[in-house]
Amino acid sequence: MKNLLTSLLLLTLPLSVIAEKAKEANQWRSVSAENAVVMELSTGKVVIELAPEFSPNHVIRYTQLVKQGFYDGESFYRVIDGFVAQAGPQDGSPKDKSVTKLNIEETITTGKDWSYTLVQENDLFAPQVGFKNGFAVGHSPQEKQAWLLHCPGVIAMARESSPNTATSHFYITNGQAPRYLDKIMTVFGRVVYGMEHVQAIQRTSVIDGDTPIDKSRYSKMLSVKMMADLPEKQQIKLEIQNTDSATYKQSLISRKKRENAFFYKKPPPVLDICQTPVKTRLVK
Amino acid sequence: MKNLLTSLLLLTLPLSVIAEKAKEANQWRSVSAENAVVMELSTGKVVIELAPEFSPNHVIRYTQLVKQGFYDGESFYRVIDGFVAQAGPQDGSPKDKSVTKLNIEETITTGKDWSYTLVQENDLFAPQVGFKNGFAVGHSPQEKQAWLLHCPGVIAMARESSPNTATSHFYITNGQAPRYLDKIMTVFGRVVYGMEHVQAIQRTSVIDGDTPIDKSRYSKMLSVKMMADLPEKQQIKLEIQNTDSATYKQSLISRKKRENAFFYKKPPPVLDICQTPVKTRLVK
Repeated sequence: MKNLLTSLLLLTLPLSVIAEKAKEANQWRSVSAENAVVMELSTGKVVIELAPEFSPNHVIRYTQLVKQGFYDGESFYRVIDGFVAQAGPQDGSPKDKSVTKLNIEETITTGKDWSYTLVQENDLFAPQVGFKNGFAVGHSPQEKQAWLLHCPGVIAMARESSPNTATSHFYITNGQAPRYLDKIMTVFGRVVYGMEHVQAIQRTSVIDGDTPIDKSRYSKMLSVKMMADLPEKQQIKLEIQNTDSATYKQSLISRKKRENAFFYKKPPPVLDICQTPVKTRLVK
Repeated sequence: MKNLLTSLLLLTLPLSVIAEKAKEANQWRSVSAENAVVMELSTGKVVIELAPEFSPNHVIRYTQLVKQGFYDGESFYRVIDGFVAQAGPQDGSPKDKSVTKLNIEETITTGKDWSYTLVQENDLFAPQVGFKNGFAVGHSPQEKQAWLLHCPGVIAMARESSPNTATSHFYITNGQAPRYLDKIMTVFGRVVYGMEHVQAIQRTSVIDGDTPIDKSRYSKMLSVKMMADLPEKQQIKLEIQNTDSATYKQSLISRKKRENAFFYKKPPPVLDICQTPVKTRLVK
């Protein structure tokens, strides 16, 4: 019905407007409220989009814990500037021990139908890097594997030394991408809104000689909820650039060329995947 | 005299302590109060170490302006999360126009006596990258050039499209390194203390559809002073890892190997120069 109405509506519009509409419909995609988490911090709200295609079991786990209110009131207890903000319940507490261990989800196998938007070949850490639905991924055509990259603002489960030991503790990367953690930690989502509030989380780690931070100052999560479980009016309606669209792919080519006059000398025609923007916009 | 006293003192210490002292003396170097800027923000103090070896005229300019109290009370008016926090006087104001234009300082010529600590060859943007006195630099042995890199926390002068147009407006990088700006902008220092306060600067840029930030909320610099011009008790005494020391070079080799059991699979034996720590410590 909606499509029919749209078709009828289009008949009354000039062709240029139709083209613009068609372009826009393809350039952006909605963030599903069932696949997004709203974390409320003292300075504002953060929205995390989950990545079930890459880390299905970690997404199920995080979603279950969020629905239980598991993280409400818990602290970011390990916050290192330029690295990560890590949170979870008190180590060794009954709450902490109540959660079972998860098997690591490092890579997915890419069948012949798998596709993504290639951004750069042979960066320091991977044979290919690009975007899949706005998530920065590594790709090995030879090994037929893909994996989520540790760009700034990703969320991943913490673990002990052994790989299959993640439970409920998670971290969000807050500095230069620690790509050496790629494929040995399970990334399961990324911040798509409110990263400045993640950056405002109280650091708990100080340099040698500086005054330690009292635990009473640690940043707490006021609440962590699935977007879909919030009243409609409190939901944050977001759209993300469709990284598979022709428009987005064209923007990557332009970005490599840097044709703007500001670039009076051109930089090397390469892109750092973690420094390549994928825009979010708010829909009222 | 101090050296003599130290020598006498050493005679009374066991050999292992002497070895430890000798090691430490080489592992760390002091930040000179004449070469450091203390920027006071509402959340705390930031220390910037200047890089006169690379950008002598920009360092002279910034030092002159700081000594005049030029930046005191000015705002960060262009703050983009994951990119830069930019500050300066009101565009086009008499104060803004009072400052003359500077020639860009992109690269230095490296003579045969020039040396630095190589960290990685052939990263995406440069044939070689490494550290010179704790500053991340690019190096081209073929072109005999070196330059400061746009890692997170560097300070650089803003400019118009034409290269020789920097005056007083500066930015501090606050996200994934925008390395495409290397060699076309003049970096002249880096934050060595208080980066979390730079990260807490009010963002002025919002996503499409979000509420614009009122200018009354912009973050101001309460004061910006040369460390040497502060009363002794207000100075922040810092030491930085000596990136030329054998100990530091050994730490780079270890970091590439990732021998800790946490790395149950080893990442590629490479280092992202902007994600390689150079520690600061506070000396009481």
